[in-house]
Amino acid sequence: MSPAENGGEPGTRFVAEIREQPAALRRLLEHDAEIARIAQEMRDRDARLVRLVGHGSSDNAASYGVYAFGLLPNWTAMRDSITLTVHYGKPLDMTGSTVIGLSQSGRTPDVVEYVKGARTAGAFTVAVTNDPGSELALAADAFIPLAAEPELAVAATKTYVNTLAALALLAGHVAERGGELAEGIGRAADLMESGIPGLERSTAKLALSFSYTGRMFVIGRGVEFATAREIALKLLETCRIAAEPLTATDLAHGPVAALDHLFPVWAIASSDGTLATVQEAATRIREMGANLVASGTAAELIKGAAFTVPVPMPEPALLSPLLSVVPGQLFASALARARGLDPDAPHGLAKVTLAS
Amino acid sequence: MSPAENGGEPGTRFVAEIREQPAALRRLLEHDAEIARIAQEMRDRDARLVRLVGHGSSDNAASYGVYAFGLLPNWTAMRDSITLTVHYGKPLDMTGSTVIGLSQSGRTPDVVEYVKGARTAGAFTVAVTNDPGSELALAADAFIPLAAEPELAVAATKTYVNTLAALALLAGHVAERGGELAEGIGRAADLMESGIPGLERSTAKLALSFSYTGRMFVIGRGVEFATAREIALKLLETCRIAAEPLTATDLAHGPVAALDHLFPVWAIASSDGTLATVQEAATRIREMGANLVASGTAAELIKGAAFTVPVPMPEPALLSPLLSVVPGQLFASALARARGLDPDAPHGLAKVTLAS
Repeated sequence: MSPAENGGEPGTRFVAEIREQPAALRRLLEHDAEIARIAQEMRDRDARLVRLVGHGSSDNAASYGVYAFGLLPNWTAMRDSITLTVHYGKPLDMTGSTVIGLSQSGRTPDVVEYVKGARTAGAFTVAVTNDPGSELALAADAFIPLAAEPELAVAATKTYVNTLAALALLAGHVAERGGELAEGIGRAADLMESGIPGLERSTAKLALSFSYTGRMFVIGRGVEFATAREIALKLLETCRIAAEPLTATDLAHGPVAALDHLFPVWAIASSDGTLATVQEAATRIREMGANLVASGTAAELIKGAAFTVPVPMPEPALLSPLLSVVPGQLFASALARARGLDPDAPHGLAKVTLAS
Repeated sequence: MSPAENGGEPGTRFVAEIREQPAALRRLLEHDAEIARIAQEMRDRDARLVRLVGHGSSDNAASYGVYAFGLLPNWTAMRDSITLTVHYGKPLDMTGSTVIGLSQSGRTPDVVEYVKGARTAGAFTVAVTNDPGSELALAADAFIPLAAEPELAVAATKTYVNTLAALALLAGHVAERGGELAEGIGRAADLMESGIPGLERSTAKLALSFSYTGRMFVIGRGVEFATAREIALKLLETCRIAAEPLTATDLAHGPVAALDHLFPVWAIASSDGTLATVQEAATRIREMGANLVASGTAAELIKGAAFTVPVPMPEPALLSPLLSVVPGQLFASALARARGLDPDAPHGLAKVTLAS
């Protein structure tokens, strides 16, 4: 649908859905009891190898899931290969595994097929989707509704944030810390709501400096690597910037050589065990003459940044990706409009991706 | 060391080491018996969850390891989070796991630390490195020498290819198919040797068309996703192109929107269950007006490519990444020189990366 058809300016839906995120998080919390029951079943079955599958923003959220399960119940979680079972037809033994299929639409073909195969192979399968009637929801043993309400902009925002929260809450219940996580998500929604107006103003100013940027890196590590991946994807799809996500450490293993003053870097810093790696990367970035945007809960601890876009620290700290993605979403929204693009409906994309 | 100090033209070492790869593969095969013993120990211990860790080219090779273990012994392998155990200090229970630490130098600090912790946590630990006296080799229970001889160009080539082969051979022995894999690697070395002169000529011509390219995607799927990652890294570090690797399917989930006639795509196609996904991506790429380079064993099956750089099919087919990376290495070598850059010593990089 063109802006004329939806009756608004370009990007109206995208920014509206970013603003809806706090409300979407609160709606997810209404499903806390269902999520607790699924966590109990994971414990009862001792299905403690967690296999996460998805594409695009869902796969970015899966990067967060690795840390949610690793940090809360201390279980091993992985972004599993879809290709191995679906395209190469290799039936793995999945007893002892929980499979979490992530798809906003619930219609991503190879995710649905993977989940069906995993269920046959003995996994406990959980669908996380925004559509309770979707094929994915019906294929799995259990179902977590994202409760984000319809997402109309092509680029995902509130479904991404709710996928993060659903994974944190599920992992929290597995660790018998569900109450603490639910409270934390509620407080994060409040922090997000009070922070969005200020972030809209600061990212709009920031976007002016990036009107002609063609290439960027977005770096983070640990829980914030998911944020780096998601911000890079927003910049690619809405602003047509060649934005590549990298861990702070992988930046030093080669890619740093490509940087110059026309190749800026967005860095997400958290006050946790990964801070030193991001600070070290920031030094290398400055040495290459590249402009640096420091974001995240520890943005102020990155020296020499040209721009700083901090977010408040939630409690527990592993919820910081709920907040740190928002400046990136708003920056993409402002920058797309500054470049004359419509972030609601990027050229060449449809909302539901049915590519295999 | 500058070209003047090493007595050669820019890129002399890089191209010499690409040409040495067949000989390096044959040297690795001299260690077949040691690799077979390590595979036997993995079986004896039933350590069938394989955790691969590394950065840069080593992490790219880990992407291949997921398929080598998935396709040969049908074991689950994953690129594990280093951050979780090293930076967040979360001690996972690693009984039943084989840990494979990958580092050409054997000195990558967090890989060494991860391996030490994993050994304490009950994993069977294997070091794969080019330096038998390195800290990584000493920290692990077992050690596979890459036998690539010293690699002097900063951008890895022969150590990458030998890491792939070491993982294939190890997975082959775990599956009791070691002899078949060793023979296959030997034949792949012969195919590579006879193919390099022709590929040097064709990629030199190809490079002329890309002198001013600033952004690229490199796509592959399944076994060839490792190749896509490694070629993108070579282009980043030696040619300063913002080259991002994507699976053929993830391209459709957003990034395709950034493409235009100044944003070409290098696609690696194999004649396996993933071919249709790469063909479908190629259609989307052409629709966006982007130039396409088709490479890999099934390059000729990609329609509408502006350039085609095929490689022969090895046997078994899962060894194709040994060959399909070579056109990308040679293209990076030719393009770097066409752009006046020295691929032996990219600005801002050192051979051994000690960043944490």
